[in-house]
Amino acid sequence: MPSTSGSGGRRVGRPRATQRPDSGLSARDELLAAAAELFTTRGYAATTTRAVAERAGMRQATMYHYVAGKEDLLAALLESTVAPSLALAEKLLADGGRPAEDRLWELCRADVALLCGGPYNLGALYVLPEVRAERFADFHRVRAALRSAYGELLVATEAGAALGEGEARLRADLVFGLIEGVILVHLSEPGRETEVFAAATADAALRIVGPGPGPGPGREG
Amino acid sequence: MPSTSGSGGRRVGRPRATQRPDSGLSARDELLAAAAELFTTRGYAATTTRAVAERAGMRQATMYHYVAGKEDLLAALLESTVAPSLALAEKLLADGGRPAEDRLWELCRADVALLCGGPYNLGALYVLPEVRAERFADFHRVRAALRSAYGELLVATEAGAALGEGEARLRADLVFGLIEGVILVHLSEPGRETEVFAAATADAALRIVGPGPGPGPGREG
Repeated sequence: MPSTSGSGGRRVGRPRATQRPDSGLSARDELLAAAAELFTTRGYAATTTRAVAERAGMRQATMYHYVAGKEDLLAALLESTVAPSLALAEKLLADGGRPAEDRLWELCRADVALLCGGPYNLGALYVLPEVRAERFADFHRVRAALRSAYGELLVATEAGAALGEGEARLRADLVFGLIEGVILVHLSEPGRETEVFAAATADAALRIVGPGPGPGPGREG
Repeated sequence: MPSTSGSGGRRVGRPRATQRPDSGLSARDELLAAAAELFTTRGYAATTTRAVAERAGMRQATMYHYVAGKEDLLAALLESTVAPSLALAEKLLADGGRPAEDRLWELCRADVALLCGGPYNLGALYVLPEVRAERFADFHRVRAALRSAYGELLVATEAGAALGEGEARLRADLVFGLIEGVILVHLSEPGRETEVFAAATADAALRIVGPGPGPGPGREG
């Protein structure tokens, strides 16, 4: 096969630099930032790859040097909301020298800070019908692993160890729901002080774990 | 002005009956059920009014006898996720004869049952960018009123009354976040037993309210 190097005509759209001059972000990160904005403010279905490229200040043909397309951008954004928390959870699970209560609290706080921290509410992308596709299986695997890590830390706490298996799993799901629920809280009050809210959510998570049998009987009547 | 009655040409598309034969639902409810399915499984932006009409087994022209369009359907679906809980909350707030703990627990349980009860996860529609539009201000008002009602019931509890104003507001938001968080939990496990989960979530909500100062200091170091 003939080499195409030196053939100027084959290099149309090839970028001169991978560093974007204005933001200091790499071209791929610039595209991810543009996609984060457009997917959350205009919607995923309504956003074209052309619109993402334009928002990032590059031509559509150039964009394909850095990302495979719209699904690739969505997958990367989804993963960015769970992968750092899973990495932290694995570190915390291995750190048997500290009380599990402290480690669970730290995971909750960091996870809320991650979910609420960026300029766009990326957790809102979880509920897109498109995300059910096999293409996003990696995201679902990482999210499920994170959820399991919450459960493992929970049963390592004193209060969690005292619970039966079914009850422990239920409380782990409630804690995970509380943490991800900040995505919906964030929706109505995006300006909230993240650090204070993250610490308060972590406190609430440990209250859910226990101890105590719950608020008492007779509430249904 | 001449009457159009008797002018067959002006009545094209007029339905013969408002009751759908197959489901027993009214024509409007049939359209809402079709919209609920399509908006949550294909996406709001990707769903045409024509597709909703077809799914409901009627022609597009007929559909406009019952609904004003796609936004009208979305507004009605959104409202159906909050209006019944607000009505219950107002009834519970007026019922001063029962302990506030019991009333808050009942609101939480009923709200979770509502959010998880239908065949489609309608809460997922909350995060649509389209829902920010003025057209959906009614939904946002009802949701905000429901959130306030949670706060009022919370400060009426013994543990809630002992909290400062800022802390009480924060815990009310955490409870509200826990309840709405079931939308995201529901996403990964739609087959869960609703009644058990609703009661467990209500228990967790009362644990968040207190009493107790939280899980103790020194978790950051």
